[in-house]
Amino acid sequence: MTAETDWTDIAERYGTPTYVYDGDRLAANLAALRTVLHHRLEVFYSLKSNPNRGVYDVLHTAGARAEVSSLAELRTVLAAGTDPADIIFLGPGKSLAEITACVEAGVYAVVCESLAELAEIDRVAERSGVRQRVLIRVNPAFSVAGSRLTMGGKPRQFGIDEATVLAAGAELTSWRHADVAGIHVYLGTRILDPQVVVSNTGYVLALAERVARETGIRLDAVDIGGGLGVAYFDGEDDLDDAALAKELNPMLDRFAAAHPDTRLILESGRYLTARCGTYLMRVRYVKESMGEKFAVTDGGTHHHMAAVGIGSFVKRNFPVELLSRPTAGPGGGGPAGRWTIAGPLCTPNDTVAKGVLLPDLVPGDLLGVRRSGAYGPSASPGLFLSHGYPAEVLLLRGRSYLVRSRDTVDDVLAKQSTHPDLSRPVPA
Amino acid sequence: MTAETDWTDIAERYGTPTYVYDGDRLAANLAALRTVLHHRLEVFYSLKSNPNRGVYDVLHTAGARAEVSSLAELRTVLAAGTDPADIIFLGPGKSLAEITACVEAGVYAVVCESLAELAEIDRVAERSGVRQRVLIRVNPAFSVAGSRLTMGGKPRQFGIDEATVLAAGAELTSWRHADVAGIHVYLGTRILDPQVVVSNTGYVLALAERVARETGIRLDAVDIGGGLGVAYFDGEDDLDDAALAKELNPMLDRFAAAHPDTRLILESGRYLTARCGTYLMRVRYVKESMGEKFAVTDGGTHHHMAAVGIGSFVKRNFPVELLSRPTAGPGGGGPAGRWTIAGPLCTPNDTVAKGVLLPDLVPGDLLGVRRSGAYGPSASPGLFLSHGYPAEVLLLRGRSYLVRSRDTVDDVLAKQSTHPDLSRPVPA
Repeated sequence: MTAETDWTDIAERYGTPTYVYDGDRLAANLAALRTVLHHRLEVFYSLKSNPNRGVYDVLHTAGARAEVSSLAELRTVLAAGTDPADIIFLGPGKSLAEITACVEAGVYAVVCESLAELAEIDRVAERSGVRQRVLIRVNPAFSVAGSRLTMGGKPRQFGIDEATVLAAGAELTSWRHADVAGIHVYLGTRILDPQVVVSNTGYVLALAERVARETGIRLDAVDIGGGLGVAYFDGEDDLDDAALAKELNPMLDRFAAAHPDTRLILESGRYLTARCGTYLMRVRYVKESMGEKFAVTDGGTHHHMAAVGIGSFVKRNFPVELLSRPTAGPGGGGPAGRWTIAGPLCTPNDTVAKGVLLPDLVPGDLLGVRRSGAYGPSASPGLFLSHGYPAEVLLLRGRSYLVRSRDTVDDVLAKQSTHPDLSRPVPA
Repeated sequence: MTAETDWTDIAERYGTPTYVYDGDRLAANLAALRTVLHHRLEVFYSLKSNPNRGVYDVLHTAGARAEVSSLAELRTVLAAGTDPADIIFLGPGKSLAEITACVEAGVYAVVCESLAELAEIDRVAERSGVRQRVLIRVNPAFSVAGSRLTMGGKPRQFGIDEATVLAAGAELTSWRHADVAGIHVYLGTRILDPQVVVSNTGYVLALAERVARETGIRLDAVDIGGGLGVAYFDGEDDLDDAALAKELNPMLDRFAAAHPDTRLILESGRYLTARCGTYLMRVRYVKESMGEKFAVTDGGTHHHMAAVGIGSFVKRNFPVELLSRPTAGPGGGGPAGRWTIAGPLCTPNDTVAKGVLLPDLVPGDLLGVRRSGAYGPSASPGLFLSHGYPAEVLLLRGRSYLVRSRDTVDDVLAKQSTHPDLSRPVPA
């Protein structure tokens, strides 16, 4: 959408700030991943990265299966027409309502995170008179460097420790309504080095065979997790999917040949969506403070906490571009300067970018924060200062579609209520 | 609410996770602050700390004025019957709609953050045929240690640099419809040391006189900011308001005597609300991983990002208590152990507390995160994993009131939309 997108038209039509997703690229990212990786590896889209229905529709139509973690995500993928056989449900603290909804929908598998939860799944499935397939989430006795957030090899709220699983035996297989038939392992996130994915996957595949051997469970499915990253910051490079495929595919091929009836599952969220999203903001004020240039925009932390860097130890800049005027040269041409891009919130932390090279900005300019398709609005505090969540727009085949409307003041306040008692003074 | 509150009843009536606010204590906190501080100092409640209408009703009835930063906050305080003469509006990136709403409501003052905004306020006020009082936010050439987030003394998106203001002269006074008549300075937040507040205030009062002298503006009001903190973590003590009053009041008295017609404004949010809130969660699963005890609850980051520590460099624990069973002794009695309290999200960061001393927990137990009345749900990513925002309940005079209902799946998905085109496959 970079070259041809008419950002001024989008901003006028839908207002700002707005998330804009490139649907053609979403579909292309999925197709590229499916083409390069082993044909037996099924890509399950992690809705947590971007739960928007329009985004999911495009990925679903392009062949993605669904990995969900809440009732609303489950409802979304069912409403989109996903075959329940292509849905898995994950999460370390599932509610009874969530487990029940999974069983009633007949999802392919519930990923189970503790032996207590296994008993709960059995009870719920018994009540419905069905057998529910379960994948056991294993917290591996193994971790590998190179991911941004290590998920395994240390005490975790996730899954069941590897040693416990291996020793569980009949505790896994003796349930009448919870049908343990595979494992799930998630080793890390934001991985940019193909070797890390390859090491992880090798470990998971070997562990799956070992668990099957020592506990007697079937291997209907092995979920190797995911964690494929994208580059956000200076000095990072996108994961090289061809290099990944070159080493991963022979490994998957050996496992697939030995287990012709086992589904191989790759979870992917950020890798599919991040590069397809732009957070579009408009400059409201420009000012100088003690020699530094500030552009205050209508967008910020409340919509894009990741770009602002809250939750990170070091503030690093997402790529930011001027989109409303023809520009050329480094950072967009024109007289380049260092700009700090701040949002409208009353906190100095509300800084989308610090010291980025941009042309001279003026009020009304449109700025785009690139690579913003994952963990955007849904991972941000949209009610901060009661501003509300932004609009979301999807571009596909040259047209634009509003896939989430902007919160109005009424929306922000809709769930609140009061009572005359609360305005009754305390007698003196 | 600690001793008498029937947490089990609240959890059954309203479900979990739920924010519970102690309305009696809210009113008492405000009364205490007003009693101890100089009678000329007016307390303006910062709705950003907790924008709930019920919370505001209680504070408004107890005599608080209102400091707001968005259309929804302005709507809230007007709906509660606040006299516009007791409302000020702040924010570094106000929209035209916000400025217009302020002028139309006739708020006491718009706090102006740049000379360009001053021109904008003048235009809007001219269109309405009124004069709008404006306080100039000054970015002071001064900072003081002891606040958790320094607001002044460095390049900032906020306000106008002190030197620029002092040199502005007629640029401030020549507007026909923007009536600059005071200043606002905000020097920091989460201040626990009375001396810091005293130093800040001394600087602001002297600056106000200097600005008036050098630019010729009237001083209808001086807003000394706020930033009064509360203790959250081990080793912190609450701000000693008596010690503060002892040094602050004589200083305010001198200024008040010299400026008998100047309103003195103190902004306060966290100090009034933080200690009045408990985030009530239920334990869903308990488990051990590699020798560490975990309780997985239904609450977490998506509702209480501050307690989880996202945005902080170091994870520290908010106070956490077992509320559903009678307990005694350190951490609540019973065999005490170290527990990690995790939420239901699929990220290892979703950890409400790490290694806290608690009795042995079992599924169904109710845990309370104390001091959670400020920057709770509205400052958290409630749509993460599409779980939605929690219920909020207010206790007052022995009764409970639902002041925000829990998001349903329908609520979470309500603003999304799709289009048949998005499910139309790309021709091969």
